[in-house]
Amino acid sequence: MPDYSAAALPLAAEQRRAAAQRIMARCAALAEISETPGALTRVYLSPEHLRANQCVAAWMAAAGMRVRQDSVGNVCGRYEAQTPDAPALLLGSHLDTVRNAGHYDGMLGVLAAIEVVAELHRTGRRLPVALEVIGFADEEGTRFGITLLGSRGLTGTWPPEWLARTDADGISVARALETAGLDPARIGEAARPPGAFCGYLELHIEQGPCLEAADLPLGVVTAINGARRLNCVFTGEANHAGTVPMGQRKDALAAAAEWTLAVEQITTARGQHRVATVGSLHCLPGAVNVIPGEVQLTLDIRGPEEAPLAALLAELLSEAEQIAARRGLRFSAEQFYAIHATACDAALQTHLRESVAAVQGRSLSLPSGAGHDAIAIAERWPVGMLFVRCDRGISHHPDESVDEADVALAVSAYFAAVLAVADAPPG
Amino acid sequence: MPDYSAAALPLAAEQRRAAAQRIMARCAALAEISETPGALTRVYLSPEHLRANQCVAAWMAAAGMRVRQDSVGNVCGRYEAQTPDAPALLLGSHLDTVRNAGHYDGMLGVLAAIEVVAELHRTGRRLPVALEVIGFADEEGTRFGITLLGSRGLTGTWPPEWLARTDADGISVARALETAGLDPARIGEAARPPGAFCGYLELHIEQGPCLEAADLPLGVVTAINGARRLNCVFTGEANHAGTVPMGQRKDALAAAAEWTLAVEQITTARGQHRVATVGSLHCLPGAVNVIPGEVQLTLDIRGPEEAPLAALLAELLSEAEQIAARRGLRFSAEQFYAIHATACDAALQTHLRESVAAVQGRSLSLPSGAGHDAIAIAERWPVGMLFVRCDRGISHHPDESVDEADVALAVSAYFAAVLAVADAPPG
Repeated sequence: MPDYSAAALPLAAEQRRAAAQRIMARCAALAEISETPGALTRVYLSPEHLRANQCVAAWMAAAGMRVRQDSVGNVCGRYEAQTPDAPALLLGSHLDTVRNAGHYDGMLGVLAAIEVVAELHRTGRRLPVALEVIGFADEEGTRFGITLLGSRGLTGTWPPEWLARTDADGISVARALETAGLDPARIGEAARPPGAFCGYLELHIEQGPCLEAADLPLGVVTAINGARRLNCVFTGEANHAGTVPMGQRKDALAAAAEWTLAVEQITTARGQHRVATVGSLHCLPGAVNVIPGEVQLTLDIRGPEEAPLAALLAELLSEAEQIAARRGLRFSAEQFYAIHATACDAALQTHLRESVAAVQGRSLSLPSGAGHDAIAIAERWPVGMLFVRCDRGISHHPDESVDEADVALAVSAYFAAVLAVADAPPG
Repeated sequence: MPDYSAAALPLAAEQRRAAAQRIMARCAALAEISETPGALTRVYLSPEHLRANQCVAAWMAAAGMRVRQDSVGNVCGRYEAQTPDAPALLLGSHLDTVRNAGHYDGMLGVLAAIEVVAELHRTGRRLPVALEVIGFADEEGTRFGITLLGSRGLTGTWPPEWLARTDADGISVARALETAGLDPARIGEAARPPGAFCGYLELHIEQGPCLEAADLPLGVVTAINGARRLNCVFTGEANHAGTVPMGQRKDALAAAAEWTLAVEQITTARGQHRVATVGSLHCLPGAVNVIPGEVQLTLDIRGPEEAPLAALLAELLSEAEQIAARRGLRFSAEQFYAIHATACDAALQTHLRESVAAVQGRSLSLPSGAGHDAIAIAERWPVGMLFVRCDRGISHHPDESVDEADVALAVSAYFAAVLAVADAPPG
């Protein structure tokens, strides 16, 4: 890895080191705010969520921001532009976590955004655009099984049925809002008018292995992958594992295995950053001495562009039908989740690429395989995302880890990109 | 199907029809003796087991046999030879069932044996050998997870630890024996000296589809397949289904799928009546959006001869190792069950083939994929088995079904074989 310590970066070496140290310390401090001691879990509208918001609010205020918690529970800090009431460039990420989470997924982006503002505040500098830093309230969907609640508060696109959704204890979103001191009748007040923001820049850990494989600390996101999830079933005939000759079987697992292998091979061969995964598979009856009569399995398929994603899915399902037909079995599939691919704004990508190239010599563009708040925000405003490499791509796991030196470079590039966007906001 | 009704068979048409009717009615009567009304379950040493024994004992007595229950709970009826204390030809099968069982697995063989004796008794005929009909107490192992308890009582090969084995309610075999009025200290008294029997002929439903596929009511068993069961594990790396490119995965399910397919293809290609089944497969963590890091799966492999069975198993395990190595994964396998292949006695097979050919024109020889009491008996005495076709090969299921006309032919062939063996016992 090159040594960036002496380079003339947008933030001086001393400032970016101090910022990275603060970020790492604050990630550790936020990780202590957990419903399960020693294993980070912080879900929407929990007491821990409210405590984390207060903690982040204090850091925002110290960085010169005017701070409030909005009506869906996002913590929002605003740093005014050279002129009052100017549109803002939105920065941030989320503060909620999965169960037994890592320390950086979400939090790193909020804390890095605070450092960008803190540097401006330290030097008494105002930009042509305001900056708003948001700690989104719920991106993961851990508690209620619905995602992007925080960012969909800003876009005003909460479906009406969300308030009635319940958690594992039967507590509805509406009741959880009340318990947190929020008013379910006023969630619409979190929505922001289209002119409020000129764009959104989110910094996030990659949650994948591509930057590490390229030996680069930072990368620029081209698109957030669209995804489809399906429940699939192969139906054959359960039978005695000892008495039925190989040629007379209707083995649902053999069919499912043939397809699982085809999913891997076809998806690999077709390329274009598409991925497909059979993540769960269940045999019925599932006994050592019984030929499986039915196999239930899931397919998760993702890609950065809609049409090629749909084409791959169609090819994989057709392959399953052919395998089932050839074996005298039945195949069925039901899609239970779909999210469209989200393209990042071309101008924001250019600013990010130049800033990344300035701090690490060259940039790398890659799609995001995971979902982010930028998906929701992109429905209203241009979005750009800056990825920071993480150790072995591990995420949603206590072993999630980032290097402090990478974080220093990331803050520097993020700062440079914010300055560049502020001078030339997207159309 | 040919019409056998007018043929000159070993049993006159009237006798074999009456015998088949009695057998079907008695199978239905025994099916009522169940711990779960409407779903046949009758396990070792249960009140239902004892009631079934009493019922069968009465039928044995009516057929001219001297009846007793031995010290492990087998019901035994003896029909003396022309001379007292002659060695006996052992006939029979088992009276216990799996849970939610069919009506014929085991019971059909006991009731058919009673009809063979009943016909001799009816005509006042004695043979050069005695006949002993046994309703074995536990072949399936449903209650205690150990199999062939009844037949291993006769061979005197109960391992010492069996008495301490417990059922799901924590009741030991020893206590269950006492509750049934039997003495755990006297189980050795069920053992019979080597000279007691000249051989064993068991009639049983096929529990597979081969006779139906050949359009034949009856077949002769060449061997009872040996079997091995293994718990296998592929270990890769769990990871995010969206962020890890196809080429950078260590997907344990993709590896397991490749092997499952290879198990099917290699076993089919190698032939020789061998079968192999992956019956259960479990993904960890098993979530739609996570690449499986570990897959646990079972392998059940069977064949009529030991050496080819061992060779196939070695080939399949080597294939698994190669798949794992090529993918950068680990594979491990642990055998938890093994039973040797049991060859049927050549002379008994000849008698059975001739008897079967006499009633249906030609015989078919096939291995038994399922285990039977003959496995244990073969350790001491020559064994032969006569198979009766069952509907679609379905067994261990309420849909288990045999045709009454097939049963009539089966009794006729069984009767003929008993006469032939009595005239020329093996060895």
